[in-house]
Amino acid sequence: MAVGSGELAYIHPVAGFRLGVASAGIKTPGRKDLVLMELAQGSQIAAVFTRNDFCAAPVQVAKKHLRISLETGQGIRYLVTNTGNANAGTGASGINDALDICQCVAELAGVDLCQVLPFSTGVIGESLPVKKIVTTLPVVMDTLQENIWLEAAAGILTTDTREKAASRQLSIGGQLITISGIAKGAGMIKPDMATMLAYIATDACIEQSSLQAALDDAVDHSFNRITVDGDTSTNDSVVLVATGASGVALLQEDEIKCFYTAVASVCLELAQAIVKDGEGATKCVSVVVTGGADDSECLEVAYTVAESPLVKTALFAADPNWGRVLAAVGRAGVRNLLVDRVKIWFDDVLIAEQGGRASSYREEDGQGVMDQDEFAIRIDLARGNCEQQVWTTDLSHDYIRINAEYRT
Amino acid sequence: MAVGSGELAYIHPVAGFRLGVASAGIKTPGRKDLVLMELAQGSQIAAVFTRNDFCAAPVQVAKKHLRISLETGQGIRYLVTNTGNANAGTGASGINDALDICQCVAELAGVDLCQVLPFSTGVIGESLPVKKIVTTLPVVMDTLQENIWLEAAAGILTTDTREKAASRQLSIGGQLITISGIAKGAGMIKPDMATMLAYIATDACIEQSSLQAALDDAVDHSFNRITVDGDTSTNDSVVLVATGASGVALLQEDEIKCFYTAVASVCLELAQAIVKDGEGATKCVSVVVTGGADDSECLEVAYTVAESPLVKTALFAADPNWGRVLAAVGRAGVRNLLVDRVKIWFDDVLIAEQGGRASSYREEDGQGVMDQDEFAIRIDLARGNCEQQVWTTDLSHDYIRINAEYRT
Repeated sequence: MAVGSGELAYIHPVAGFRLGVASAGIKTPGRKDLVLMELAQGSQIAAVFTRNDFCAAPVQVAKKHLRISLETGQGIRYLVTNTGNANAGTGASGINDALDICQCVAELAGVDLCQVLPFSTGVIGESLPVKKIVTTLPVVMDTLQENIWLEAAAGILTTDTREKAASRQLSIGGQLITISGIAKGAGMIKPDMATMLAYIATDACIEQSSLQAALDDAVDHSFNRITVDGDTSTNDSVVLVATGASGVALLQEDEIKCFYTAVASVCLELAQAIVKDGEGATKCVSVVVTGGADDSECLEVAYTVAESPLVKTALFAADPNWGRVLAAVGRAGVRNLLVDRVKIWFDDVLIAEQGGRASSYREEDGQGVMDQDEFAIRIDLARGNCEQQVWTTDLSHDYIRINAEYRT
Repeated sequence: MAVGSGELAYIHPVAGFRLGVASAGIKTPGRKDLVLMELAQGSQIAAVFTRNDFCAAPVQVAKKHLRISLETGQGIRYLVTNTGNANAGTGASGINDALDICQCVAELAGVDLCQVLPFSTGVIGESLPVKKIVTTLPVVMDTLQENIWLEAAAGILTTDTREKAASRQLSIGGQLITISGIAKGAGMIKPDMATMLAYIATDACIEQSSLQAALDDAVDHSFNRITVDGDTSTNDSVVLVATGASGVALLQEDEIKCFYTAVASVCLELAQAIVKDGEGATKCVSVVVTGGADDSECLEVAYTVAESPLVKTALFAADPNWGRVLAAVGRAGVRNLLVDRVKIWFDDVLIAEQGGRASSYREEDGQGVMDQDEFAIRIDLARGNCEQQVWTTDLSHDYIRINAEYRT
């Protein structure tokens, strides 16, 4: 199940960024589960990673290699991703396994170990089948090309039901630049500084510090604003690559601003695609909190509503049981909340005010909103000017089935 | 579904405390949904209520009447409880409805309005059918007797599948005193200062301040340590009544201590009964966190594990997918957690240490623990001497069904 058609627009290739896909048989025989990405020499890279304390071995190795790359000026050249096994909760041997994968890529490509970043996603706590991956890496290396973004988007999926990709082109001083990205993620979704896995590339030429700033800002309002089950993954990683192969340099402030906006737009589209493909999802609902005294209380209220199992089962049933929203707002821990001032809408239908049902509210209006696949729950706290928005899914029978059967 | 047999021991009547039950047809015709409790003149009462900001009208009225009772010395004489409608999210008219119910009881019994406390549980956001209740109150008044605790336990249930009751007798200076209690609750369970509804009575004679202290302490380690879905109700209320009708006064420190221990034991038995009857529950699992630097981080880790949808679906599947426990510990927000020192056990089976699977761990051992209806997930943070324990359920298909169909 998933919300909406999921139909993807054309994903423009990015000059200087090649992708390769193959099957290493890590979990399911024949499934494409190994993806390699090659960055042209001189590319810049920005990244954000999970803040889960138990971050996976590949996350630890990728962070280290990025640090070395920044210190030595030796650019990152390859990103290697496997699905079917997260190489998380694997202790010291997991680190060695991730390094072995990087070493194999480095040798095949004739680059340094530290120029390769590893990524893994899948089950936690099992050893990575390094031999299967190493055997398949030469095959992947042979498939590298610029125009197979959708194949790569399929190759990084786990419990996802469909590919997630987004692409933008914009004109900078009369010259075209491209930004394309793919992502995966359907469960264990409450990113904290990053989401599951997302890879975005541009052919623009931009300084690393500006690239990182663009990514930080975009991630904070996209991947960091979605939740499927409130569970932050051990492997969340987002990278943004700038190959510079277009020859278009972003130097002026307004050009960089344009670029930031486009990156944010790609990230938001990918993040929303993850929610719409959330495990068992039949609804994609935005929770918008306005009138907060600060951003943090807006987010606290938004996430309390967005993660309440009772709200989420009501979404699944398309039941306008607004009392559950009210109860969630009431337990969100906002200090000195004046409940009589709080207002709640489903889309534009005012549901609750003055501590109870709005006098204008009719059940059929609420039902009309809830029957849609996508809508907004809007909450006005009436105590300030801050506003935040998060996106969530319903909680369905399929979520239980998928996660109860995950290892069988 | 529910965990264990749920078989109840005999519930000793409490001298000076009478109960009455009738059907007012509030939600389901014929269902016993109205319960009245009468306290002998001179009884003391202690209570704790939900901290949800949107606390229900009956909670607001009960708090006010308790305050007046303490100020004027006019004792509380009646507790009136309806199920099928929570009278929450009902604004000013909800307050009037709760007062009307109290006024009716007061007139029938010849006491003051303020000597009656109202309690409601059921759907949020709908008007209380006051007329049905008022019409039935004389019937309930006629049924008052000391020996129908189990009928009252049935009368306060909503989505619960079975009655919850506990009883203790202890000897104080060679004389017997009794403590008996009942509770209801299966969903919207993450009490904060109190649980759904629980009523406990004793025939001991004890000062109000000592009674309140006994309840606060007992609730904090029982009802405030359970979670079914992390949703704190708008109506949570626990009361502890001391009728004094045994003539046994608790004056000595060791007598009061004995009494505290017995009250705590009754509360814990009722709280665990709520978890075992959690909506859709097939497992009752305690999450024990040791080695914390303070109680607050122990509770943070325990609740993060106990409320993780991924952990809870693994419990449902009896799948020893310990990686999900590890990921939940990692996102609990413990500052400077040294993950290599963390150890995780299922009962006595060591599962994870040094950031990965314990070398001694065998999957069949983990499976053996998970196949039980009740067991413990134990987590040692190895950074201090604090320890906390919470109780939780699994997340099953029946939880979704019950809560998706709740208003249909």
